[in-house]
Amino acid sequence: MPEYLSTAPVKGTRDFLPAEMSVRTQVFGHLYEVLERYGFLRYDGPVLEPAEIYERKSGQEIADQQLYTLTTRGGERLALRPEMTPSVARMIAGHAKSLSFPVRWYSHPNCHRYERPQRGRVREHWQINADIFGSESANCEIEMFELIHDLMGALGASPDLFAVRVNDRNLLSSALTDVAGVAPELLPQVFALVDRWEKTPVEDLAAAGAEIGLADKEFEKLSETLGAGAALLDELPAEVKAESNLVKVLSSSAASLVRYEPLIVRGLAYYTSTVFEVFDTSPKNRRALFGGGRYADLASLFTKERIPGIGFGMGDVTLIDFLDTHGLTPQPRNEVDVMVIPVAEELADPAREVAASLRKAGLRTSTPLELRKLGKELTRADKAGAAAVVIVGEEDWAAGAVTVRSLATREQRQVPLAEVAAAVNGLISPS
Amino acid sequence: MPEYLSTAPVKGTRDFLPAEMSVRTQVFGHLYEVLERYGFLRYDGPVLEPAEIYERKSGQEIADQQLYTLTTRGGERLALRPEMTPSVARMIAGHAKSLSFPVRWYSHPNCHRYERPQRGRVREHWQINADIFGSESANCEIEMFELIHDLMGALGASPDLFAVRVNDRNLLSSALTDVAGVAPELLPQVFALVDRWEKTPVEDLAAAGAEIGLADKEFEKLSETLGAGAALLDELPAEVKAESNLVKVLSSSAASLVRYEPLIVRGLAYYTSTVFEVFDTSPKNRRALFGGGRYADLASLFTKERIPGIGFGMGDVTLIDFLDTHGLTPQPRNEVDVMVIPVAEELADPAREVAASLRKAGLRTSTPLELRKLGKELTRADKAGAAAVVIVGEEDWAAGAVTVRSLATREQRQVPLAEVAAAVNGLISPS
Repeated sequence: MPEYLSTAPVKGTRDFLPAEMSVRTQVFGHLYEVLERYGFLRYDGPVLEPAEIYERKSGQEIADQQLYTLTTRGGERLALRPEMTPSVARMIAGHAKSLSFPVRWYSHPNCHRYERPQRGRVREHWQINADIFGSESANCEIEMFELIHDLMGALGASPDLFAVRVNDRNLLSSALTDVAGVAPELLPQVFALVDRWEKTPVEDLAAAGAEIGLADKEFEKLSETLGAGAALLDELPAEVKAESNLVKVLSSSAASLVRYEPLIVRGLAYYTSTVFEVFDTSPKNRRALFGGGRYADLASLFTKERIPGIGFGMGDVTLIDFLDTHGLTPQPRNEVDVMVIPVAEELADPAREVAASLRKAGLRTSTPLELRKLGKELTRADKAGAAAVVIVGEEDWAAGAVTVRSLATREQRQVPLAEVAAAVNGLISPS
Repeated sequence: MPEYLSTAPVKGTRDFLPAEMSVRTQVFGHLYEVLERYGFLRYDGPVLEPAEIYERKSGQEIADQQLYTLTTRGGERLALRPEMTPSVARMIAGHAKSLSFPVRWYSHPNCHRYERPQRGRVREHWQINADIFGSESANCEIEMFELIHDLMGALGASPDLFAVRVNDRNLLSSALTDVAGVAPELLPQVFALVDRWEKTPVEDLAAAGAEIGLADKEFEKLSETLGAGAALLDELPAEVKAESNLVKVLSSSAASLVRYEPLIVRGLAYYTSTVFEVFDTSPKNRRALFGGGRYADLASLFTKERIPGIGFGMGDVTLIDFLDTHGLTPQPRNEVDVMVIPVAEELADPAREVAASLRKAGLRTSTPLELRKLGKELTRADKAGAAAVVIVGEEDWAAGAVTVRSLATREQRQVPLAEVAAAVNGLISPS
């Protein structure tokens, strides 16, 4: 007996069978449409990149533990991209001279991280990346937040289902040093602590605080400062606030789109001021769905030109999980609109002719490839979600006609050839 | 001075900037549409697969020289898929019980081969894969050939620009043994020779023939047999032809879609009968654009169930090269339909409001993120291919209006807020 290979996909990766693919296509199709209404242009890049563009920039966590790397026979050390930002930074730097900044770009790459598979974490995921490059104006922030609201709206999420929680790392630095009295040299460690704050029990936070040298009193003050929420803003120095795009947003008409939250850090190393995350507000699914932020100098690995930017990445796993939780996932699309069934092998040519005319009219049309009983084909057509079948019979065909049958009402009638497409279209319910 | 990393993509891979991406999206969008009109359902799978699914099946050439492989920290030996067929075989085998065969599936994966970069060859390419699984009927062949003609038609290729050249490996075996008198044990080597036939000077073919043991006379007879073209069919034994789907196609109404060509082999190991390739017939670009074939047992690595199939793969490089050669490549889409320009910073909020209403009407709309001179913004709007700009000025706004300007005619007029979308729509030429 031969030994068969497993039919399961590699651990942490996924097959998308047609029904799942149809959901993915619809969900991301809505997102593409919204992005393009905002003037975002789609780009794409290679799966393989030089490993060093991640190792030099993305923080040690990814480079050391999570990167898939390989060495080619030519001796190049390559990595499967774990995220899109270094790739797009490379492209923007390479074409900076011919671009009219600011530019709005988006992409939908598959990204690879070698992570322990768990809920919402896979090793290959599909991620929408949207960025504005080349402007430091707070208008970028406002546009990003408007865009996020419209993206969520296009997926059917009403504004009560999510919150856009925002922070500015410079405001956080000031809050930590000027308000909580943290010593400046401790800032990196305290940032890391804040990043874990909401997911970590308070005893563990206190222990971690003690470990980096915070006295009980200092930890208490830190805790109180971070817990102040929006009120913290009043305590920050005016000159710090004057420099903050986020403060401009919070005093504009766009303030209602976001919620200031001093605890937001977003781990990735390259964010330099504004950071944000979209948070599921439902009690059963409280967590960040996706996030992003602003970087003062995106492409410093590739060019001396300073290119600021702001953007976010939105992964398919978390997003579709959110839609599932809230009953917003679209149904897979029906497989075909109509099936054309010849009642005998000799009528295969006429059936193909009819099918061709229906396709010309834009109808998704299939014909059976093998002759089976009509009843079987009707069941199949039902299962495929067809609205109609067109039956090609000998007598009808001799009379220049076919029989069009509605699968909803099971009514059928003889239709002249020239009118078949119209008759079928009449049976398709608008969707 | 810091050392900057290269901004070029890894050798053999490509960046798709927005203009190139727009071409790719349009071209493949047309193909998706045609495929779906034929009832093909889209699926997708992981970039990473177990290396052994290629090493056991795909022929040594790929496995030894062209496969990108890596070993994970967990010890799995993985490969970047070089083609989609083994992946889809795995999926079909894994879900065979719940599928109603025959099924029509298509995908559009990126595939990786470590090849020497040359014209039409890259290391990562995007490939449409379309297959019918679970039927041995010649109707599958006919549908594939109809589909190919419609795909090419959707790209603007008139039927004189290409030919679908077809063969059946069983007919070729019979031609070689029964007509040309090749010894059966030499068939594998002679197949390999035939596969190179059209690209190799005749002296080299003769030398290769001699090397595998063909006497001059035998090589001459082989040469004559293969050169017979369609006439060769008459010389083949009736019982061989009776078993051939291709012969059925050639005697059906679909015969006009294809051209029988005894020289077609298509190197890949898993084809077992019908093989075909789409050939560019223009004198300056004579070569195969893409091809496919039938396999008697697709998923034998994964299941004891015998699943026949027929399909093809269509790569983006060759395809877009073909379109370029014939002037059929679509223009990149214009970047936005309309730009909304506030004449002063204080009018940024009103401009955003106008932009939001235009987006609701489905218009691709952008606003400048930084305030610049109106003239500069008009130039930018022109460059972005906008049909109109909407100028938000103080007096207009106070009167509940804005100015709508056509970029084609440079005419402008005041428009009440409620009518802006209609006014802009009126300036967009149907495309």
